[in-house]
Amino acid sequence: MKNLHGLSGGWSHGASAGSSRLVNRHEVCIINALPLTEQEELTFKEVASGVQQYFVGDEGLDKDLSSELTDKATVILGNLQVSQVKRCKRIAWMQTASAGVNNYEVDGVLPETAMITSASGAYGQEVSEHMFAMMWALMKRLPNYRDQQRENIWQDRGPVATVRGAKVLIVGTGDIGSHFAQLVKAVGGNTIGIRRDVRKAAPGIDTMFGFKDLDKLLPQVDVVALVVPSSPDTYHILNRKRLSLIRSHAIIINAGRGDAVDCQALAEYLAAGSIGAAGLDVTEPEPLPKDHQLWNEPQCLITPHIAGGYHLPQARTQAINIALDNVQRYLSGLPLRNRMR
Amino acid sequence: MKNLHGLSGGWSHGASAGSSRLVNRHEVCIINALPLTEQEELTFKEVASGVQQYFVGDEGLDKDLSSELTDKATVILGNLQVSQVKRCKRIAWMQTASAGVNNYEVDGVLPETAMITSASGAYGQEVSEHMFAMMWALMKRLPNYRDQQRENIWQDRGPVATVRGAKVLIVGTGDIGSHFAQLVKAVGGNTIGIRRDVRKAAPGIDTMFGFKDLDKLLPQVDVVALVVPSSPDTYHILNRKRLSLIRSHAIIINAGRGDAVDCQALAEYLAAGSIGAAGLDVTEPEPLPKDHQLWNEPQCLITPHIAGGYHLPQARTQAINIALDNVQRYLSGLPLRNRMR
Repeated sequence: MKNLHGLSGGWSHGASAGSSRLVNRHEVCIINALPLTEQEELTFKEVASGVQQYFVGDEGLDKDLSSELTDKATVILGNLQVSQVKRCKRIAWMQTASAGVNNYEVDGVLPETAMITSASGAYGQEVSEHMFAMMWALMKRLPNYRDQQRENIWQDRGPVATVRGAKVLIVGTGDIGSHFAQLVKAVGGNTIGIRRDVRKAAPGIDTMFGFKDLDKLLPQVDVVALVVPSSPDTYHILNRKRLSLIRSHAIIINAGRGDAVDCQALAEYLAAGSIGAAGLDVTEPEPLPKDHQLWNEPQCLITPHIAGGYHLPQARTQAINIALDNVQRYLSGLPLRNRMR
Repeated sequence: MKNLHGLSGGWSHGASAGSSRLVNRHEVCIINALPLTEQEELTFKEVASGVQQYFVGDEGLDKDLSSELTDKATVILGNLQVSQVKRCKRIAWMQTASAGVNNYEVDGVLPETAMITSASGAYGQEVSEHMFAMMWALMKRLPNYRDQQRENIWQDRGPVATVRGAKVLIVGTGDIGSHFAQLVKAVGGNTIGIRRDVRKAAPGIDTMFGFKDLDKLLPQVDVVALVVPSSPDTYHILNRKRLSLIRSHAIIINAGRGDAVDCQALAEYLAAGSIGAAGLDVTEPEPLPKDHQLWNEPQCLITPHIAGGYHLPQARTQAINIALDNVQRYLSGLPLRNRMR
């Protein structure tokens, strides 16, 4: 709960002293749909003492809430179903448990004046670590050795690679991309970033380029890591032509959006040996159809979109800490962290 | 070839100025059984100009050498078969391409006065990286996801773990153990070392203990990494009783000697869920018999003793650089690096 008493610390410096205005606690009604332990629930009660707060648990996400509750709620914590959110007409602020808030930004879901804040920052560690683990596993041929193990075969599979000294291209350098870059750097790799605004630095990135430089960079690198958000610009950013620019020993890691990669073309390139390997936590479509070629491609390692979520318990704690911090800020009239709207 | 011109650098400070005595190059005859590229062969020729040097390649390791050659050889570079080494009666110095030199220290293999130097230091990176990759893969359940992939199953396998903040016990803190500790530290793990001489520090180890503390430490850690050398003391150092002290979420990594772990007991504990997972690059015996229970244990990841050797090309280069440096030292009458006898 490191942010619990952090109001006087780093996060509040954005507030100008004059803008603080205390919220009237009696007018606030919170629907709390965060996945909390009993202890954490107590902490939320403490922080919001004097405020009506209904804990619906994360099972509440799929459940119909009573009209009594939806009619009076002014704050939502957690990713309630969009259909439920729509029923809450008095919402002034919504805090998601996810890094993305796309679903709730759509017109008509929330009142126009409602603020939206995200849990951005909570998932950088878990997603980047999953990518890091996949990259190392592929470099050391662990999926191939696992396949052999299934057939009780003890046989050398030849040379392996290393992250040390490798050139790692990271497409998308937000929270996750930057975390990943820092892991790569920590073990001796070189990092090249691609982002929309080249002037914006990201911790862990040695050199930053724009998307227009992608074609030039692809033939130079040992790893291509994709963590782009879902947007029309990122659809098939690794299309058939770009995949052909990647070197035959190189590894692709995708943990952003599945359709950032043309999965059909990727399967063909992997089968032909013109790309070294791929580690995909996201695919196009999802789930990957039973008969998709990628399932049976030895050089492709597939995990079922589990890099994020709360698979690493620390991520859940971090997301909850962000929400808790924002509840304190909201009730104190301070600017909210991770404000998206 | 960073050591090629390094004689005046770090490695030579052990030489007292007066002890230098030039070797008479005409009396030296080298059997070079290192796995060299043509370019590297030229470098060895250059460095040993005026010296008879026979390049037998690493295929030579298993081949009968001519009596003419074995009769006049005074230096062996590379791991010639013991039977061939025995035939060379005039050897003054042998440089192995391996970190271990056990086979050549046996009485009667080399003349009593012959020096032996190893390639210790060349394999720290590759073996430690393989251990690191196995640890991450097991923490993120990649072997389980690979098994699912083989059956085209898209299904969440639940929580994962992280090296960040984990307590990693490293048993054996020589070159490989120390390299591994540094990787663990680089990504935020905590390292505890066990070695014979507690007063000897090792880079990357936070706290050092002796072997007598092993039983006390095992129930406290998240990872137990074994990189002990082969010796009577290390046989079944993780025996049935000690395995019972390890926590049910903990991961065992073994890349030292196979019989450091009681593999039969390990298989039973993994099957019972009382140990989290194991990554074994070495087993008892090797190769692991076709019908051994460990092959089919989902929580055990097996690789066929390939962490070392020259699987990472950089390791070969490093081993060759050590040999090359020592040839220069030998011909200049300077103390040899990595002297084992």
